[in-house]
Amino acid sequence: MAIVLGENQYGKAEVRLFTVARTDGGVHNIKDLNVGIALRGDFDACHEQGDNANILPTDTQKNTVYAFAKRHGVAEIEDFALLLARHFVGSFPYVRGAQVSIEEYAWQRVGPEPRPDAFTRTGGATRTTLVTIEAGEPDRVSVVSGLSDLVVLKSGGSEFRGFVKDPYTTLEETGDRILATAVTSQWRFADADDGGPPRVDWAASHAMTCDLLVRTFADAYSRSLQQTLYDMGRAVLRARPEIAEIRMSMPNRHHFAVDLSPFGLENGGEVFFPADRPYGLIEGTVVRGDAAAPAPGEDATRAASGGFSWNFTGR
Amino acid sequence: MAIVLGENQYGKAEVRLFTVARTDGGVHNIKDLNVGIALRGDFDACHEQGDNANILPTDTQKNTVYAFAKRHGVAEIEDFALLLARHFVGSFPYVRGAQVSIEEYAWQRVGPEPRPDAFTRTGGATRTTLVTIEAGEPDRVSVVSGLSDLVVLKSGGSEFRGFVKDPYTTLEETGDRILATAVTSQWRFADADDGGPPRVDWAASHAMTCDLLVRTFADAYSRSLQQTLYDMGRAVLRARPEIAEIRMSMPNRHHFAVDLSPFGLENGGEVFFPADRPYGLIEGTVVRGDAAAPAPGEDATRAASGGFSWNFTGR
Amino acid sequence: MAIVLGENQYGKAEVRLFTVARTDGGVHNIKDLNVGIALRGDFDACHEQGDNANILPTDTQKNTVYAFAKRHGVAEIEDFALLLARHFVGSFPYVRGAQVSIEEYAWQRVGPEPRPDAFTRTGGATRTTLVTIEAGEPDRVSVVSGLSDLVVLKSGGSEFRGFVKDPYTTLEETGDRILATAVTSQWRFADADDGGPPRVDWAASHAMTCDLLVRTFADAYSRSLQQTLYDMGRAVLRARPEIAEIRMSMPNRHHFAVDLSPFGLENGGEVFFPADRPYGLIEGTVVRGDAAAPAPGEDATRAASGGFSWNFTGR
Amino acid sequence: MAIVLGENQYGKAEVRLFTVARTDGGVHNIKDLNVGIALRGDFDACHEQGDNANILPTDTQKNTVYAFAKRHGVAEIEDFALLLARHFVGSFPYVRGAQVSIEEYAWQRVGPEPRPDAFTRTGGATRTTLVTIEAGEPDRVSVVSGLSDLVVLKSGGSEFRGFVKDPYTTLEETGDRILATAVTSQWRFADADDGGPPRVDWAASHAMTCDLLVRTFADAYSRSLQQTLYDMGRAVLRARPEIAEIRMSMPNRHHFAVDLSPFGLENGGEVFFPADRPYGLIEGTVVRGDAAAPAPGEDATRAASGGFSWNFTGR
Repeated sequence: MAIVLGENQYGKAEVRLFTVARTDGGVHNIKDLNVGIALRGDFDACHEQGDNANILPTDTQKNTVYAFAKRHGVAEIEDFALLLARHFVGSFPYVRGAQVSIEEYAWQRVGPEPRPDAFTRTGGATRTTLVTIEAGEPDRVSVVSGLSDLVVLKSGGSEFRGFVKDPYTTLEETGDRILATAVTSQWRFADADDGGPPRVDWAASHAMTCDLLVRTFADAYSRSLQQTLYDMGRAVLRARPEIAEIRMSMPNRHHFAVDLSPFGLENGGEVFFPADRPYGLIEGTVVRGDAAAPAPGEDATRAASGGFSWNFTGR
Repeated sequence: MAIVLGENQYGKAEVRLFTVARTDGGVHNIKDLNVGIALRGDFDACHEQGDNANILPTDTQKNTVYAFAKRHGVAEIEDFALLLARHFVGSFPYVRGAQVSIEEYAWQRVGPEPRPDAFTRTGGATRTTLVTIEAGEPDRVSVVSGLSDLVVLKSGGSEFRGFVKDPYTTLEETGDRILATAVTSQWRFADADDGGPPRVDWAASHAMTCDLLVRTFADAYSRSLQQTLYDMGRAVLRARPEIAEIRMSMPNRHHFAVDLSPFGLENGGEVFFPADRPYGLIEGTVVRGDAAAPAPGEDATRAASGGFSWNFTGR
Repeated sequence: MAIVLGENQYGKAEVRLFTVARTDGGVHNIKDLNVGIALRGDFDACHEQGDNANILPTDTQKNTVYAFAKRHGVAEIEDFALLLARHFVGSFPYVRGAQVSIEEYAWQRVGPEPRPDAFTRTGGATRTTLVTIEAGEPDRVSVVSGLSDLVVLKSGGSEFRGFVKDPYTTLEETGDRILATAVTSQWRFADADDGGPPRVDWAASHAMTCDLLVRTFADAYSRSLQQTLYDMGRAVLRARPEIAEIRMSMPNRHHFAVDLSPFGLENGGEVFFPADRPYGLIEGTVVRGDAAAPAPGEDATRAASGGFSWNFTGR
Repeated sequence: MAIVLGENQYGKAEVRLFTVARTDGGVHNIKDLNVGIALRGDFDACHEQGDNANILPTDTQKNTVYAFAKRHGVAEIEDFALLLARHFVGSFPYVRGAQVSIEEYAWQRVGPEPRPDAFTRTGGATRTTLVTIEAGEPDRVSVVSGLSDLVVLKSGGSEFRGFVKDPYTTLEETGDRILATAVTSQWRFADADDGGPPRVDWAASHAMTCDLLVRTFADAYSRSLQQTLYDMGRAVLRARPEIAEIRMSMPNRHHFAVDLSPFGLENGGEVFFPADRPYGLIEGTVVRGDAAAPAPGEDATRAASGGFSWNFTGR
């Protein structure tokens, strides 16, 4: 009974890249990225005999990121990821698939009168992308964009009632609770009509999708975090035709009302203990009815990714 | 064109559980766990209308962990995870699948004469398990065990040569390098002959698998980290018939030889800079030829997990 | 030769507190804090004989934070820290000194039309305070405010030249580099004229001090990070008479220009590798000439703090 | 009223160093260190005018670490820190004080038959040192050794009773609790009789001190964590004449017994929830009666360190 190599991939993770685009007027535009690369292909001999003839070193992959940043510049992260993924799939016949993931950290110019070359990190959400190309005739290209660590909270408009009670239930129903979460979301773009990669204004699409997520969280009355998740996803799909599917992972950052009765005080929804662990974790996908149906035990996005795991920066 | 709910799951993540089993002789046996639960099932109404009638609160899931720890004790983490997963699938008809993940942190008794009730955290690798049950006739049960953060290093017996060179290659071939990694590995147990859950001495199987991984890393000559990964996986499958498939994720913790020539010194493989980022990331699976063949774009373990993501403690 | 108890303190660290102030119009104002308490005093019997008669449990300290948040509300963090510190020193004769440290995390309302009860975490710098009271006639009160994790970067206006060269020097002089750092700063307020605690508009003082730090970093030409640190501190002391002394700790977040010459490319200050470790760490204090002179081996702020360590949230 | 530069220092933090000592027999001995350097001296012109004539770049400091590792080897971390600190103070007249901090991570050989060149990280406590030299006639040398992240727990022999009750007290007295902590400790060596640096078998002293800390924690009955801290420090000073003073910082890692009564179960000290935050933080010093008396608001160790902060790896 044979023992064989199964799924495998390798690449460089967490290549930090910072670029300065210098304009004639002395104004600098910066990009602050974390790039991950994963390759799939014909690497059996490497695993089985230590034959590295098909192995492009991860050090070379890192060099490619830096050289491409100089040669082509970094416009939007989706463009840069497409450029890199196409290079790896197109240059080496034994590379059958490439996945490039990029995180972009946000900075803003020092103000109020905008400085040409001084910036502060804004914190807040990180913008992400995940581009996968599988070699074929033609190549199959998937673009997923997203964000992580978008921390939102509403102190009104949230209840949790009518849930299952069993012998282990002690939670009381509440008509007014704090709802807080750190949203991680990824959305897959629909293919172009010609079957090619999507043609999208990446920056505008991202900004408007983020805005939809935040505003829907704020405005939709919440009977559960699941309902809020679904409302957020549906709002995005309704307004953004370029997006075929959206996933969200939302930890419930519990804020427990402190029992002040031992001190003769009543807590009228004023004093809370934000707990670290454990936390509820709500994860869901919202899709168009005509999106490629997922195989059993598999979601559409993973299928679109050709078996690559759905993750950031190669981690 | 409809917008619909796709794959979704929810549960409690990172339930910390510490147990003390008190023997008649005053000797205490302890367990230090981190438990995660994820449920799949008929939760559409919750997402779409905020109807929580099918929602077992994550708070109740947490309570169940603590109550079961008292009622049944915690033997091996695989047993405890099976117990919990069976409870959730068996008690609620709208729960169609449950996944329980557990991390176990290692402690040892204070010595040299063993104290009955005093311990030190040993650090080192964390033991993990991931049990998935899907409702059916009969239920489908998958048990995956593993470890994370097993940090190993060899300062001899490792080379990297014969790799692809392209215009972006600057890495030099080396016949002697430091090879270091932090192994995360998960292995799936074969089903019992009657199609039921595996019947395994979990503790012994885990200890011997860990030992095989470490010793193979130490002893197998390495032409690449991929080869080492494959050697490690093959050694496990050869020696452990209860294991059907093993996965490893191995970041290459680069140790760069420092160039001392500017100071008139020669570095004979003595002085290294261990770098943080970027790092190579090598991931692979080794399977028995007769293990369930993965569908395209899908690995066997994921299929066995019924669509649940392959992760720890619900994160 | 006796063995005796030396300096000691104890308290509750990292008490997370979230408050909602509900106005008549349905608008919510929130505060998100991390509170630490440390007490000094007559605790010898506890250490030496396990006599807890003088020990206010840290659990009680935590309860006090929550009860005071309800009873008195949380205005500015300096006010709340003063309230707590006065309570501990004033209520228990064996407590001779109390230090309360608070971190405040920034949130902003969801917009553009401001929501009454929905918020996003803004990331960016954390506001801090550190209040110390030593019992006496009268009590001695010190208020220190600050910030942490203010990440700033300038891609112009920075050089590093004319430094010491020795046989271990390989760094080349540069007339144009990226200067980036994550500022942690703390500033001590001058006592009120009557020797009492300072009377300051805490919120305005903090906002304007942060603004001075950022703008000076952006605008002052930098010949070294030390010079920039000094310029920043001096700008604050010149403009803010309520501040007697300011400290800054500024890690040099190195951005190394990538050598692209192996690929036939010239890097004109466009492509950088932001390194994690090691990093330069520049720390300094700027004081008014009439501030209390530090004793040898001791800085003024530490003296003002009565031996308490200068830290956040009790860590 | 002048604005002037106060206390300041700078240096390189977190220089990661890994060394392999290769013996004739093919056996490798490894060291895995994290080195921090901080310099004090005449750096006013740098701060005030950006004149770097007295500034030894932190990059050069890093190079010195690597060159010295090759030239002199790394025996015990105290020796290596002394070597580096002497170099900086002795080579540059404007450097008036140097502090070198080193963390050492523990590895063990792969076994059972010991491999010559393969290792696993053992986790557990990290060994530390902090060497300070102030220029003078003669130089003043202080050596502090220590450890961090020594995680210990006792499930018996610990109570907490007889404490202060006030209106905010809800904690109940307990005659049997879990006591757990992560010890960070530092101990200062007494000067040699000739006023010079201590002459100590660093490795043996460290091993025996760690052992005393662990065994005293395990064996001494605990009425409070303060008592346990004092017992641990006293045990070290009694047994180790080379040590003049010891400090400990011990967070109380609370393990709360879970209330199982809602489920009809009684928790007989079997099921606990290990909480993350908040935590009690107990800090104390144990000194010989004849150790240099600390000035008010200052401990002996800080005085011995010439104003340097008491920290690790330059952080």
